[in-house]
Amino acid sequence: MERIAIIGLGQIGSTLGQALKRLSFENTEIVGHDREPLVASASKKLRAVDKLFSNLLNTVESAQLVILAVPVLAIRDVMELIAPVLPEGCIVTDTGSTKVQIMKWAEEYLPSTVNFVGGHPMIGRETPGVEGADQTMLSNATYAITPSTSASNEAVATVVKLVELMGARPYFVDAVEHDSLVAAISHLPMILSAALVSTVASSPSWPEMEKMASGGFESVSRLASGSPVMHRDICLTNETSIVFWLDSLMRSLTEYRNLLTGSEPAEGLENALSQAWEARQTWLTHRSDWRGETVYLPPPPSLMDQVKGFIGGERLVEKEKQILEAWRSRRSGPKD
Amino acid sequence: MERIAIIGLGQIGSTLGQALKRLSFENTEIVGHDREPLVASASKKLRAVDKLFSNLLNTVESAQLVILAVPVLAIRDVMELIAPVLPEGCIVTDTGSTKVQIMKWAEEYLPSTVNFVGGHPMIGRETPGVEGADQTMLSNATYAITPSTSASNEAVATVVKLVELMGARPYFVDAVEHDSLVAAISHLPMILSAALVSTVASSPSWPEMEKMASGGFESVSRLASGSPVMHRDICLTNETSIVFWLDSLMRSLTEYRNLLTGSEPAEGLENALSQAWEARQTWLTHRSDWRGETVYLPPPPSLMDQVKGFIGGERLVEKEKQILEAWRSRRSGPKD
Repeated sequence: MERIAIIGLGQIGSTLGQALKRLSFENTEIVGHDREPLVASASKKLRAVDKLFSNLLNTVESAQLVILAVPVLAIRDVMELIAPVLPEGCIVTDTGSTKVQIMKWAEEYLPSTVNFVGGHPMIGRETPGVEGADQTMLSNATYAITPSTSASNEAVATVVKLVELMGARPYFVDAVEHDSLVAAISHLPMILSAALVSTVASSPSWPEMEKMASGGFESVSRLASGSPVMHRDICLTNETSIVFWLDSLMRSLTEYRNLLTGSEPAEGLENALSQAWEARQTWLTHRSDWRGETVYLPPPPSLMDQVKGFIGGERLVEKEKQILEAWRSRRSGPKD
Repeated sequence: MERIAIIGLGQIGSTLGQALKRLSFENTEIVGHDREPLVASASKKLRAVDKLFSNLLNTVESAQLVILAVPVLAIRDVMELIAPVLPEGCIVTDTGSTKVQIMKWAEEYLPSTVNFVGGHPMIGRETPGVEGADQTMLSNATYAITPSTSASNEAVATVVKLVELMGARPYFVDAVEHDSLVAAISHLPMILSAALVSTVASSPSWPEMEKMASGGFESVSRLASGSPVMHRDICLTNETSIVFWLDSLMRSLTEYRNLLTGSEPAEGLENALSQAWEARQTWLTHRSDWRGETVYLPPPPSLMDQVKGFIGGERLVEKEKQILEAWRSRRSGPKD
């Protein structure tokens, strides 16, 4: 491969550029383009590209691999613009957070002589824009891959190999399934974060609140600091799934509300909070396994006993013991 | 002060113990008690206490300062148990996440000869239990202080001084106001985190989803990993305020839903997401000011221009420029 072209040198494009450059392929040059000269030059300073082009078409016209790392709606426009100059046999991939629309656009706009392999690296950080680029984010990250039906096996294998070389974990998934899954674990949290900030920051008490807001608020609101353009495009191209999950979440919040105002709040809240706690600890454990990381340890069951004598919470203590036992047996059992 | 007693040597109690021990007061011994011997010995290993007592009453009977660092409902029981043996003039403080009930219990159970000064260090981390104790969490942390009307000025001044010496920022607040404020920025996010996990983890697609869940899900769901006992007690002692904020949040989520399904989703989502983005960036900036930290910089307005040519989003680009200009003028203006 003589030339890899990256279109869009923001956080994701520059991160991929850094990772590819670090691989030091012989006789391969990484070139990039960004509409915004300041972003392009920042990306070059971060060693994400060997060479910059100010002209979009020049960037791709002799590339064997083109990576589209612009916001979702912009991907359509870039595809339309570059289609006439893409070399025959060229591989095109993208980094968009939704895939169904993008696969449709690829079919509509790209010539049949190029191989489109959809991609979605599940990375990103709070430091906004190109300054947040960091190839270490790719380490063990899930990298969704949605090949088009017309892409050659060789093209798909090339993208998979590059993803692996960059340290990420390729994850094949159908575009429809992808959009439905990420609606739940990525787009729903994004709207929750934004809604949390919208809610509290519009309160007359916000000037007092914001002085007390600490790490918990910081975590849960983190995604509200993502690019509004990127998030708007995600919403516009994955509306149905997001609305489905939003409705599920509102039902769950209504259940928590009913527990709070019900006649036996302690027991219901115990169950709901313990189940959520268990599910998240289990997820962290599975993730550690997948990543081959040191296992994340929940507190020993005995820790929970401390409250026993005080509040007579025998049932809760028992429940947490059961949870932890189940957790332990999963830990010592076979891996997924 | 000859003896400081910490009751409850979990994450918060041990963190305070570490911070107090680091101050190396001459002739002051830090003693501690935890119902659970394993927790107590772990705390001692983490150098949070000089000496352990297995008996609760022995721990406090010759202390000049008693710190109650147990879950909220357990605070009531500890107060009742230790009341008969508390030395005259002793200062009692706590670390509970809600304050109204605790102030009432202090009045009801503690003798009038002791000075109760409510406290709430706004700290905590995901690593559960005593293993997560770390006195560096206190650096620049908000530490809410709610003195009882009967506490002497000297007692209040002592607690404030200790909080400052431990590196935190004392923040005087009325107990009712405290509970209302933290309901929004601490308890609401906690329920959101738990509801997010409850929602997605109960889906039949969760086994696929959890493989794709990444940093965004991790952040927004973080508080679901907090102790179910602690969170249940918070809910049980701050129900009204939490329900108020839950209702506000559900209205906001309904607005986002209406925007998604409306006839002009792009514009409405642009506005809502940009406003949330602006509010959070402003909060991060204010917090940096309060903490005297390096300022958190949003992306330069020009970065947003990159999307302009592609999607014709002139209005959004203009909006983000306005946001950033407003943000800049606040930055250069007088501090709060």
